[in-house]
Amino acid sequence: MITLAIDAMGGDAGLTVTIPAALAFLQEKSDVKLILVGNEEAVRGALGEHASHDRLQIIHASEVVGMDEAPQSALKNKKDSSMRVAIGQVKEGAAQAAVSAGNTGALMATARFVLKTLPGIDRPAIAKFMPSKGGGLALMLDLGANVDCSAAQLLQFAVMGGELFGAMYPRNSQPRIGLLNVGTEDIKGGSVIKEAHHLLQQSPLNFVGNVEGNAVFSGEVDVVVADGFTGNAVLKAIEGAVKFIGGIIREEFSRNWLNKLAALLALPTLRGFKNRLDPRKFNGAIFLGLRGIVIKSHGGADVEAFKYALLEAYHEVESGSMAKIEQGIATQMARLAAAAEQTQPATGPAE
Amino acid sequence: MITLAIDAMGGDAGLTVTIPAALAFLQEKSDVKLILVGNEEAVRGALGEHASHDRLQIIHASEVVGMDEAPQSALKNKKDSSMRVAIGQVKEGAAQAAVSAGNTGALMATARFVLKTLPGIDRPAIAKFMPSKGGGLALMLDLGANVDCSAAQLLQFAVMGGELFGAMYPRNSQPRIGLLNVGTEDIKGGSVIKEAHHLLQQSPLNFVGNVEGNAVFSGEVDVVVADGFTGNAVLKAIEGAVKFIGGIIREEFSRNWLNKLAALLALPTLRGFKNRLDPRKFNGAIFLGLRGIVIKSHGGADVEAFKYALLEAYHEVESGSMAKIEQGIATQMARLAAAAEQTQPATGPAE
Repeated sequence: MITLAIDAMGGDAGLTVTIPAALAFLQEKSDVKLILVGNEEAVRGALGEHASHDRLQIIHASEVVGMDEAPQSALKNKKDSSMRVAIGQVKEGAAQAAVSAGNTGALMATARFVLKTLPGIDRPAIAKFMPSKGGGLALMLDLGANVDCSAAQLLQFAVMGGELFGAMYPRNSQPRIGLLNVGTEDIKGGSVIKEAHHLLQQSPLNFVGNVEGNAVFSGEVDVVVADGFTGNAVLKAIEGAVKFIGGIIREEFSRNWLNKLAALLALPTLRGFKNRLDPRKFNGAIFLGLRGIVIKSHGGADVEAFKYALLEAYHEVESGSMAKIEQGIATQMARLAAAAEQTQPATGPAE
Repeated sequence: MITLAIDAMGGDAGLTVTIPAALAFLQEKSDVKLILVGNEEAVRGALGEHASHDRLQIIHASEVVGMDEAPQSALKNKKDSSMRVAIGQVKEGAAQAAVSAGNTGALMATARFVLKTLPGIDRPAIAKFMPSKGGGLALMLDLGANVDCSAAQLLQFAVMGGELFGAMYPRNSQPRIGLLNVGTEDIKGGSVIKEAHHLLQQSPLNFVGNVEGNAVFSGEVDVVVADGFTGNAVLKAIEGAVKFIGGIIREEFSRNWLNKLAALLALPTLRGFKNRLDPRKFNGAIFLGLRGIVIKSHGGADVEAFKYALLEAYHEVESGSMAKIEQGIATQMARLAAAAEQTQPATGPAE
């Protein structure tokens, strides 16, 4: 049995999205239990006749974190928020993962505070699988948890991303890792990126070198490592481009009656196209580096999209990725420490 | 008459692209003269019977900068490169703009060295017009000239971008300027971005605030200001997304004979779609902040794409944007200096 704790109040639409998604997910997966966290009366009301489902549990939380609330304010003033209580379920071992469509900053701050980071990890990162060439997927991180990153943090992101990818896709045991940069040559980028490049080259990871912003799609790597500022900008640009191009397709196919007719005939094809790029299927960002699994759904997710976020949590629990990441980080840190000792053996005690 | 100097040897394909594009452009624009810079014999050979065209001039340059050559090496060792001689034509006033498909880094270093920056500009930026909502355009800068930017530089980019947009689209005299960030709230981003946000708010520019990576498409701003690292990553991600989605459309429409038939019927629509997003039409990045106009074509441009880079140069010269940028920067600097004096009036001489 896999148990997921859901922040039932989170997201732009709250219960009207989370409850139908939870019920649909229970129907699809027979090995899942769900803990719905939120205002008990409201949750019961939204569940209606399903309130007594045998794989459902309701836990009351008296507060809700606002979508625009500052992370520190949420952390300090909303100790009984649905978000925090849901994460608390993971901390206590009652659930293996928490899922929320709430405010990203508050969710990250709360998750860090409640769960703490894995040994060797300075800061958690936000990661997401994205569609890539040939029907494949690429994992990109960080997508906005850390606007300023040190080279050591970028290395940690690479380790975490590689372990997650390997855990989710065990056939690919040596995921190819690329460092997002302004060009593929080794000498590109600012000082932090150059140092990260050096650290990655020294590491036992399958580091393929610098990659550019199109690497998510090109199929050249499995994991794209970026600082949170650039990663977030790239993610939003891609989402914007997909939406923009979808709009142009719609415009062109409704330009005149001839085009409308063509659209009718091309409907199965257009559906196939839309289906492959449907952003709802790629909902569910992963908070990596914590002592527990937390999945962030898009705030504006609909029922279908939120279900995909639940599925992402399910897959993450199933793959045992967290234990692998913890192990991978420990191994990596030991190797780095050994390498550092080897290269600086003659330092006197006065130094 | 508008005179453009062309680095005839630049780009992956060199003369086989630049010469046919130059000849086609001469045919389209009767008020244009072209100076072709490169190995004279090779240029004459490529021109064939057109070598004696009355609006064409050939200037010999004995060297070519390699596509992977380090900027400093090109600057030091290739003083008679086609790139440098073409830019020299702008410096001497023989041409109003130079166009090259050569190595970006070397072109920027050479342009800075030969032309120098405008008063008040620390570093030039690379800018590009991109397709936006409702058939409009948005200008984005910097796209990779400066991997690390100070807040003052970001402000300069905003001034340059605003003046360029206003010069090219005079109906829009107060272009809306956005600062690329990880969220739209004022408090987002690292220290440099926060300071830039503050400077932009204090400035007389039409600053609409922080925008996210999708702002190029959303129609919410006319100018997107970013540091060169993020701007480059976003540009490449967008280019990658367009290519990726185009590939998926092709795949879906050739999946089976029914889809192929639909594609045949939808051909005019698909052509209309392709036409609107054709990256060749958006070829031609602008080097902003120099005492002269330099346009960078994509290195892999074909004849059609290179013609668009020539057209970009033509429009830039026609719009008188450079003089406007120079004036705009001067006005802006004077205002900032006055504002600084007003807010710090009581500082003693010992300070």
